[in-house]
Amino acid sequence: MSKPNIQSVLNVEGLCQIVWTNGHLSDFQPLWLRDNCPCPICLHSDTRERILDIMDVDFTIELPTELYVTNDQLKITWQDGHESNFTAQWLMKNCYSDRARAERRPTPKLWGQEIINSLPEIEYADVMNSDEGLLNWLDKIVDYGFALIRNTPTVEGEVVRVAERVSYLRETNFGRDFDVISKINPNNVAYTALTLQSHTDLPNWELPPGTQFLHCLEFEADGGESTLVDGFKAARSLQKLSPSAYDFLKTQEIPFRFHDPDWDIRWSAPTINCDTDDNLREIRYHAALTAPLDIPADRVMPFYKAYRELTEVIRAPENILKIKLAKGDLLVFNNRRALHGRMSFDPNSGPRHLQGCYVDNDAILSKRRILQQKLG
Amino acid sequence: MSKPNIQSVLNVEGLCQIVWTNGHLSDFQPLWLRDNCPCPICLHSDTRERILDIMDVDFTIELPTELYVTNDQLKITWQDGHESNFTAQWLMKNCYSDRARAERRPTPKLWGQEIINSLPEIEYADVMNSDEGLLNWLDKIVDYGFALIRNTPTVEGEVVRVAERVSYLRETNFGRDFDVISKINPNNVAYTALTLQSHTDLPNWELPPGTQFLHCLEFEADGGESTLVDGFKAARSLQKLSPSAYDFLKTQEIPFRFHDPDWDIRWSAPTINCDTDDNLREIRYHAALTAPLDIPADRVMPFYKAYRELTEVIRAPENILKIKLAKGDLLVFNNRRALHGRMSFDPNSGPRHLQGCYVDNDAILSKRRILQQKLG
Repeated sequence: MSKPNIQSVLNVEGLCQIVWTNGHLSDFQPLWLRDNCPCPICLHSDTRERILDIMDVDFTIELPTELYVTNDQLKITWQDGHESNFTAQWLMKNCYSDRARAERRPTPKLWGQEIINSLPEIEYADVMNSDEGLLNWLDKIVDYGFALIRNTPTVEGEVVRVAERVSYLRETNFGRDFDVISKINPNNVAYTALTLQSHTDLPNWELPPGTQFLHCLEFEADGGESTLVDGFKAARSLQKLSPSAYDFLKTQEIPFRFHDPDWDIRWSAPTINCDTDDNLREIRYHAALTAPLDIPADRVMPFYKAYRELTEVIRAPENILKIKLAKGDLLVFNNRRALHGRMSFDPNSGPRHLQGCYVDNDAILSKRRILQQKLG
Repeated sequence: MSKPNIQSVLNVEGLCQIVWTNGHLSDFQPLWLRDNCPCPICLHSDTRERILDIMDVDFTIELPTELYVTNDQLKITWQDGHESNFTAQWLMKNCYSDRARAERRPTPKLWGQEIINSLPEIEYADVMNSDEGLLNWLDKIVDYGFALIRNTPTVEGEVVRVAERVSYLRETNFGRDFDVISKINPNNVAYTALTLQSHTDLPNWELPPGTQFLHCLEFEADGGESTLVDGFKAARSLQKLSPSAYDFLKTQEIPFRFHDPDWDIRWSAPTINCDTDDNLREIRYHAALTAPLDIPADRVMPFYKAYRELTEVIRAPENILKIKLAKGDLLVFNNRRALHGRMSFDPNSGPRHLQGCYVDNDAILSKRRILQQKLG
């Protein structure tokens, strides 16, 4: 939305109705306006936190009959004499009309196998050396759910330095960062040379880690291509193919569990997670860590049926992006949208060594907002 | 539930029906059993992760007509020759009948102001020096949503050592640990001497930190009593008083936001969060960090009404536990259940210095399970 000015403001049946110069219409309820008064008595001027106690405000508070705008500010003098001033810009940004809310909806760019021809990629130097490069990279992660950083120095620990461009790391039971390399006596299938079907990591945590960083330090082995599937596209495809399966997976919580001698971490959550406007927030999908279903008996077979339908979409070749990481590639993806996997490899044909870590999605989105504000 | 044995097992209309010696009845669906086959081909023996690909199993898989139990093991030979062996103990633990599921429901102990007479408290030495003490303490946190550790050495950093009895820390935008002390130019109301109404911390994160540790190092100031309210009790009281307000707050997501020059962290979530069986999981309640509501216009006034009703319950004196922390007290509470606050204090009357940190609830619950297994 462009930055229009206020054309008129009227008390229409008790609501503050603003007509904007671009024709948009906003209706603000009086209690909503009072609750968001930006004066220093109501909003702490250092912390920007609300100090106003809404319990001190009359629930049936009314607007004055006449409303005035001066210097692009709406000034309201309430019946008790308290004065609130709202800038036009703030009012526009916080308009909660259906239209304004729809315009603020996230719009992820969905992709399939064809994205191999136009990979969201960026140079290491751009990410590390400029705010513009950093923002550009974060935009790609938010839009596509992944981005590939090229020409990252193949130095141990570099993955952490890149992640720390955004934030401190998200630690897990596997540590602060980790090495993916085939191990003796692994506590996780990732540490073998087996095929890994598309999955999301750590669904057994209440909040699975958001953004995963995987840095390729060495890769001479045969096989072992990385795979990525856009879980949001898979969910939307399922919604079209089988609305009942989509609805089922959106509402039915299923249990996940990881356990080893030190940890026993369990959580139940739906496979597909949306906000109340049906915007996709998360796919949680990992057969290896799905615990025995402890859901009502009459929901067991419907779950297996819906899960099978989703799995068919996830495994359709046109939905699978396959890339063989090269030394210096750093793959960054939203672990709660992009399902990742790996073809099996022959550990005797040569070394394969990735280093990884996580950053929470809150931190990715926060840094992006800060840079957007800074760079205008 | 005691540990009964299998009395009989029959194929009843295609289900595996077990009658237990205590009279309990379990029905297992064949696909569910096949999916949970514990043999080393289906379940990785090191990682305990499922390797079986359910897509390789016939959706209409059937049980043999006759089922056998030997040595307290149910052995099933499937039509393709694959063999699955389940121990009686495992089957009982994973029974998903309505009755078994109901018996596994969490049963938080709800409390009000009267808990002042029987505070869940424990000695520092018990927590630090024995697994039994540690488990005892974790049990209190899970049951009551808080516990008070007495006689903690008043040494800087001790709070971190106690938290690390459980796990690594949950870092936030306020750092890995923090000092609560009145500051000049605070970025958070906690760092002033103002009254803090009951609230939960950091509702603007997708996952607010779970368990909060607050260690009292110094407290000579007048006032500044800590307050705690059982948010789960408040939610259940609201459910009785005003079912429509309860339902509204359980479903309506509202936006939260924290911003300073480095961070702009936003998330939308309902005030009351339950699992699909209506077990309470979380209360998210903090007026200071509630962003301007961007919800459908016809839901704005119902929100304010329901919020007001909940706030009346939260502020009812009989629901508020008030404790003045003493030097050496370490208050530990579930930040997603127990709302905390503070009376105002006079910063000129003497010093008040708390140190705090967080640990995620997943880690609390995981450590408790590991200790339960270890201590039997």
